[in-house]
Amino acid sequence: MAEPKTRLRLRLHFGEGAMLGPGKADLLEKITETGSISAAGRGMGMSYKRAWMLVETLNSIFAEPLVVSSRGGAQGGGAEVTEMGRQVLAQYRALEARVRAAGAAEISALEAMLASDMSDGK
Amino acid sequence: MAEPKTRLRLRLHFGEGAMLGPGKADLLEKITETGSISAAGRGMGMSYKRAWMLVETLNSIFAEPLVVSSRGGAQGGGAEVTEMGRQVLAQYRALEARVRAAGAAEISALEAMLASDMSDGK
Repeated sequence: MAEPKTRLRLRLHFGEGAMLGPGKADLLEKITETGSISAAGRGMGMSYKRAWMLVETLNSIFAEPLVVSSRGGAQGGGAEVTEMGRQVLAQYRALEARVRAAGAAEISALEAMLASDMSDGK
Repeated sequence: MAEPKTRLRLRLHFGEGAMLGPGKADLLEKITETGSISAAGRGMGMSYKRAWMLVETLNSIFAEPLVVSSRGGAQGGGAEVTEMGRQVLAQYRALEARVRAAGAAEISALEAMLASDMSDGK
């Protein structure tokens, strides 16, 4: 009866405080779609400043920039996700899918122990 | 050369704002070890109040309490992780292990793209 609705979110801690999680992955995806850091941030309900900071963090974690922008500033120029950005996003999404599949038995076991008002799809 | 040190943390969102992640799992584990909510919280650097709130949340998410305590209050009485609590913790730990194993290829691919100061084990 219950519609399984459990979402599994995962976050990688690479050390040195460097993390990759759902927020940065979604931001990369939205920048790919919109070609703009500010539009991407807006679509996720975050300020331009925060979106920009996340992009700077992403660019500092990896060997090459994941996002390049033609100009900064509050207006925001065009932004592009680089080849490495696409690869990082693809690996993260592949990891999510694999994890979801691999953990299906444990997730079901946990769902079976939920209180009824958590598991009846309400 | 690089010592892989990436940690993967996962959080389950069951809906209705109910979540199970590393913090609650660690707390259950510490309560098992210490037999005390306050000692468990202290061991994790959290206030008694916060530890207690997390326990109440855990108890409300699942069909049966995961932790029972002989008395509350700031002194904290004894606390015990129930059979369902042990099962929830065991499934969560199994999920972590499975996810880690299943995602090894993607995690390696991401590690290979890290900036050198992120991946040289410093």
